[in-house]
Amino acid sequence: MAGTDHKKPSKIQDNGPAIVLIVPQLGENIGKAVRAMYNFGLTDLRLVAPRDGWPNEAAVAPAAGADIVLENARVYETTAEAIADLTYVYATTARPRDMIKEVVTPKHCCDLMRKAVNTGDKVGLLFGPEKAGLKNDDIALSTAIVSVPLNPSFASINLAQAVGLMSYEWFQTGSDIEDSYIPSLDTKPATAGELQKLFDHMEYELEEAGYFRSEQRRSLMRRNLRNIFTRSELTHEEVSTMRGVVKALATGGGPGWIAEKEEIAKNKARKPE
Amino acid sequence: MAGTDHKKPSKIQDNGPAIVLIVPQLGENIGKAVRAMYNFGLTDLRLVAPRDGWPNEAAVAPAAGADIVLENARVYETTAEAIADLTYVYATTARPRDMIKEVVTPKHCCDLMRKAVNTGDKVGLLFGPEKAGLKNDDIALSTAIVSVPLNPSFASINLAQAVGLMSYEWFQTGSDIEDSYIPSLDTKPATAGELQKLFDHMEYELEEAGYFRSEQRRSLMRRNLRNIFTRSELTHEEVSTMRGVVKALATGGGPGWIAEKEEIAKNKARKPE
Repeated sequence: MAGTDHKKPSKIQDNGPAIVLIVPQLGENIGKAVRAMYNFGLTDLRLVAPRDGWPNEAAVAPAAGADIVLENARVYETTAEAIADLTYVYATTARPRDMIKEVVTPKHCCDLMRKAVNTGDKVGLLFGPEKAGLKNDDIALSTAIVSVPLNPSFASINLAQAVGLMSYEWFQTGSDIEDSYIPSLDTKPATAGELQKLFDHMEYELEEAGYFRSEQRRSLMRRNLRNIFTRSELTHEEVSTMRGVVKALATGGGPGWIAEKEEIAKNKARKPE
Repeated sequence: MAGTDHKKPSKIQDNGPAIVLIVPQLGENIGKAVRAMYNFGLTDLRLVAPRDGWPNEAAVAPAAGADIVLENARVYETTAEAIADLTYVYATTARPRDMIKEVVTPKHCCDLMRKAVNTGDKVGLLFGPEKAGLKNDDIALSTAIVSVPLNPSFASINLAQAVGLMSYEWFQTGSDIEDSYIPSLDTKPATAGELQKLFDHMEYELEEAGYFRSEQRRSLMRRNLRNIFTRSELTHEEVSTMRGVVKALATGGGPGWIAEKEEIAKNKARKPE
């Protein structure tokens, strides 16, 4: 999906969780994780003993321009040092471990982290190396385990995907976006009077075309049509469009359109299945 | 994160949303999207005019073993053909469009899709090509727009990430996983009697060590210690561990441990910042 607009203010989550990558192997994966972090406004990247050292040229292109995160990344020798300033640390893992430690969902983890951050605490998320995942010694340093619910027979999730999912959930907990909305753009909704003119026009032409075969059918069909077009919440402009459609159809379009459609279908290339 | 266990039953979402990739460019990205789909049990992949044709060898390695999805992928010439059997289709886009169309969050979208699937309808998600995103003509074919909340100044999300996020949210809506739990393993929680013996032991040794300097302090510290260890919900085995710890400390460990810790700190390599 495209859509970066550099003119827009960045929603940087200065107090967002630190993303701690422990012994990451490929620079490319670090870069992809960085892109995913910054997609959701996270900037605090900490690398524990990255295999190929740091900085790593291989991380730059996959980061896709999230240079601020790459440049501010900090490198540590041990997990303990990387998390020393954090109050709550969550260890991401898909595998169950032989450990008596609370396991939380990504969403619940982010709710807990958001609460902690709101009272001034610093938080972080630990991610193990590609393939091997976190060691039990790293998990033992953590407040709790966060486990992404996954297909149990195919639970090997890409590192950048895991970072992306957690960053996404974090961003969600601070988001005031409504579940659903309809953008208003620069148009204005049609008035009931405009709609009524559309109905009058449509019903006049349908009457002319013999569409209403009986009085009973007329009142039923009128109601159906009105329900369709009130439900659509048409704009002023869309009412004009619909009136043009009715006019075009009424002046001879109907059967012609159907014939044209059949012609198109005939010439259509074989449908792959 | 590692953790695939092929012995476990696959949670295949046979009625899960079709993932429709429109004019995808790189086979590698298709493979990564496939891995993310199957991580969350989705198997219905539809490709509209993939740039490099199909099948594409470049998709195999990044799919990381999700062969069932690759093998069952279907190819179409047009978006209209790819979605013909679907009742509800959601178009993923990060950019606002000049279109009067409902915009929903990923979570709300998945709730709506789950409801539709539960009443027997088929649903799908449209993803545009890397970089360009969906065309307005494809969006016009959709029931609604689903928009991932993103950092507005860095909203260019990787295709496989977008597929992964939507697949994750879908899996969540059908998941009965608790927000939080503590695995019980094969251990049993300590009884109050076992805990009391630990307290008695600890307080006896602390008394011997002169830790309780006054009667007032004794009752305060006893209460604090009891609160710490009851809150920990110790198991039977952990009470034994703690009693071993108390015993070891009481027989001369305390000051020695602190000295040892200082020695370690002295020899420690410089902390990177």
